[in-house]
Amino acid sequence: MSSDKFSSARAYPARRVARWDEETDVVIVGFGAAGASSAIEAAAAGAKVTLFEVGAGSGGASALSGGEIYLGGGGGTPIQIQNGFTDDTESLYTYLKMAGGPDADLAKVRLYADNSLAHYHWLVEQGVVYKGTHIPTKIIEPETDDTLIWCGSEEAWPFSEAARPAPRGHVIQWTGWGGGRKLMDVLEARVRKLGVDVRANTRVLCLVADEDGAVQGVAIRDNGAEKFIRARKGVILCTGGFCMNRDMMQRYAPNALVSNDPIGVVDDGSGIVMGQSVGGDAIHMDQFFTTCPWYPPESLVKGIMVNIHGQRFINEDCYHGRVSAYIAKQPRSKAYLLLDNDIFGRPMEFSRVDVAATGETWAEVESELGMTAGTLTATVEVFSREAAKGHDPLFRKAAKWLKPLTKGPFAALEMDMSTSFFSYFTLGGLNTLPTGEVLARDGKTVPGLYAAGRATAGLPRWGEGYSSGMSLADCTFFGRMAGKTAGAKLS
Amino acid sequence: MSSDKFSSARAYPARRVARWDEETDVVIVGFGAAGASSAIEAAAAGAKVTLFEVGAGSGGASALSGGEIYLGGGGGTPIQIQNGFTDDTESLYTYLKMAGGPDADLAKVRLYADNSLAHYHWLVEQGVVYKGTHIPTKIIEPETDDTLIWCGSEEAWPFSEAARPAPRGHVIQWTGWGGGRKLMDVLEARVRKLGVDVRANTRVLCLVADEDGAVQGVAIRDNGAEKFIRARKGVILCTGGFCMNRDMMQRYAPNALVSNDPIGVVDDGSGIVMGQSVGGDAIHMDQFFTTCPWYPPESLVKGIMVNIHGQRFINEDCYHGRVSAYIAKQPRSKAYLLLDNDIFGRPMEFSRVDVAATGETWAEVESELGMTAGTLTATVEVFSREAAKGHDPLFRKAAKWLKPLTKGPFAALEMDMSTSFFSYFTLGGLNTLPTGEVLARDGKTVPGLYAAGRATAGLPRWGEGYSSGMSLADCTFFGRMAGKTAGAKLS
Repeated sequence: MSSDKFSSARAYPARRVARWDEETDVVIVGFGAAGASSAIEAAAAGAKVTLFEVGAGSGGASALSGGEIYLGGGGGTPIQIQNGFTDDTESLYTYLKMAGGPDADLAKVRLYADNSLAHYHWLVEQGVVYKGTHIPTKIIEPETDDTLIWCGSEEAWPFSEAARPAPRGHVIQWTGWGGGRKLMDVLEARVRKLGVDVRANTRVLCLVADEDGAVQGVAIRDNGAEKFIRARKGVILCTGGFCMNRDMMQRYAPNALVSNDPIGVVDDGSGIVMGQSVGGDAIHMDQFFTTCPWYPPESLVKGIMVNIHGQRFINEDCYHGRVSAYIAKQPRSKAYLLLDNDIFGRPMEFSRVDVAATGETWAEVESELGMTAGTLTATVEVFSREAAKGHDPLFRKAAKWLKPLTKGPFAALEMDMSTSFFSYFTLGGLNTLPTGEVLARDGKTVPGLYAAGRATAGLPRWGEGYSSGMSLADCTFFGRMAGKTAGAKLS
Repeated sequence: MSSDKFSSARAYPARRVARWDEETDVVIVGFGAAGASSAIEAAAAGAKVTLFEVGAGSGGASALSGGEIYLGGGGGTPIQIQNGFTDDTESLYTYLKMAGGPDADLAKVRLYADNSLAHYHWLVEQGVVYKGTHIPTKIIEPETDDTLIWCGSEEAWPFSEAARPAPRGHVIQWTGWGGGRKLMDVLEARVRKLGVDVRANTRVLCLVADEDGAVQGVAIRDNGAEKFIRARKGVILCTGGFCMNRDMMQRYAPNALVSNDPIGVVDDGSGIVMGQSVGGDAIHMDQFFTTCPWYPPESLVKGIMVNIHGQRFINEDCYHGRVSAYIAKQPRSKAYLLLDNDIFGRPMEFSRVDVAATGETWAEVESELGMTAGTLTATVEVFSREAAKGHDPLFRKAAKWLKPLTKGPFAALEMDMSTSFFSYFTLGGLNTLPTGEVLARDGKTVPGLYAAGRATAGLPRWGEGYSSGMSLADCTFFGRMAGKTAGAKLS
């Protein structure tokens, strides 16, 4: 059979499959954190599981991450508690609801908030080791092997007003950045121990579906040969987002393309397209996470951010990604971080955030940036006057980060989405039930089809609300849900 | 056969159609401007055309419009020329390209710019009467029966810098607002004269497609009976957008739901969903047009717009819809229009834009609005100082609209997307070729399927770029293209 018979955009008609080359219970597509977690639960449910990965091994975008998972609620995880924090389920629920934006998936938020603590224990049972220590300062990821970090906007307005803050970023023990690779190694070991049949270097070409759109299996390319694999219980798409597919980015999320720093490995959107080919509904496809790591050093958070017109636009103590999402929406997707001599510092080299102007007075900085007289200076004047009184009436930055910017010399760091490091990945994807079942556009489920991770619109689905660890929380937890549901299905 | 056999989200398998109840060449779904224009061209090409409309008669959202069409280029339409304007094709091309945003459809923009003048003549041939007169002031629609108006941001930065401005809004002769109904009457007369079989009160339930996704016809409900209609040459979806479908709005364009003023009649998205059911790609589903008619009186354009922080955010001489799109993105989707006594006026009653604060000084207005001292006042001070010199260095409002706001008393009008009249409709839809052929997600066309108007992502596909008359231009011109292509197809 010729290769152009297959397109991820078109399901292959089951009627035309003369013979299934192989049969299994559950087919999983993609070996990132979602695929691994699905595989573990499906296998634990007694299903025969076959996992196809187009790359050479496990990992995906999960292995590029910090290996941090957003966990809490239920009074607090053992690690929150041993570091003196408590965390209630309703605060976690409220935070995740706000983070989900104008179309938060309340069913998923509810289920996750209620079960996040149990999910912590599950991770530990799989072999994830947490050192148990806490880093109190604002950072991106630990450079050490510490565990618990503030990884969202919990202490920042408006979240702080609605939900009691707690640090919820749980980082796997691993020295330095990149704990995601370690996390994947742990999950992979479990996957293999449970006897999952892992096929690397194998591309799933398309779904195979019957005339009613029920998924029966997949067509794959295996060592150059095309084969049909029957999935008696179902197919779980864990293929990630589409940030590496420039054509899809252009059609669905063109605003992200101001940056040239996608974070992904495969992330070609093929799973989303396969899901759509059998009627699966893809939602919020315009949404993306982006961040420029503009802190540490933490002192920079005491600076203020202005756009090219010298206007502030956010409380700068929000999570770096939330601030970056706002920068992305400013004119020319650009901002300046204003610092006085007390708090001056430089972000990490790789952020490509450099000094754009300096001056003995703010008027000099304003002028050097080419701004109109009375713009930036008025902004700084109002901010410093109010900060001296301990508040920020415009953007409600928390008191601990407020400091009048009056100690010259002064500087402006430039953050430009087109030249600084603004990494991004996509948040839109297939609409699923908390069970992992893929929803069609009429609200019915697509028989035999499941999805998890960034192939779906999950807990994270709104760029302004993303927090570190939220995607891995979603991948692992709802990956498990999909694996359980499919694994337990009567075939 | 039972009704739940049919869902717009699922194509009905052609194999299961025991007998076609009727056969025609071209089926058109929807009798707005796109459907009417498609029908005219398909019939003119010699095809047997059957048009289904779920409502009682022609109209759709087109009949709710002003009946204004965005036309120009080629040296100028006769009406542009008789009013002393010329208009070159490249300026029209550039304007439409900019108006299309970060994923403008350059093939459609090119074709339309090159053929807009010919399209003017076609409209006149159909019986559209233009009085030929010009209204030079900034308005929404003529209250008279005049023709040519400025209906976009042509004279405003950044458009004015890139493309030579010309007024391009051509309004059908009709006294008062609502010329869209008159336009539909004219088009309907042509449709009927050409012998198109028009079936009102008839819902198209779903597409009928073969196993390869090629569209063969439709299933309809006609007087309670369900029937299969074969379309030998193809089906053209002209069903409009989805602004009246709250569930779709929530999943794809939740930001519009801040307002409660959709402009639509049916606009339930069923055509988009039907197109997707056979692999059609829906793009830019998050984009919507919104406008609050905050002028006339024209003097209001000399005011400045600030957000709740007292910050300006746009050159206020842009098209009202572009300004409104920016308001929608401000904190709390809210803005204030600042006026001094020289230019004070009230927008039309139905805009629900009222006075929020007044004062003898701007400091009083600032305080009455609950803004922090030194915010609004600094904005006004910078603006007035620069306006007195004849420029607007921040937002580049054109000199003719610049006036220092120094003549007290002063007022602020409140524009709030959740309480003022912010009408909206959707701009995302099926991805089509300029021929009207629907594109699948792999870039191939869907055999037998065409679409036009707001069921597609057309010339207008970016909220910030919309101009009045652009959707009717797209509906009529690309409706024609779809009708020509389908009508000429060998069946």
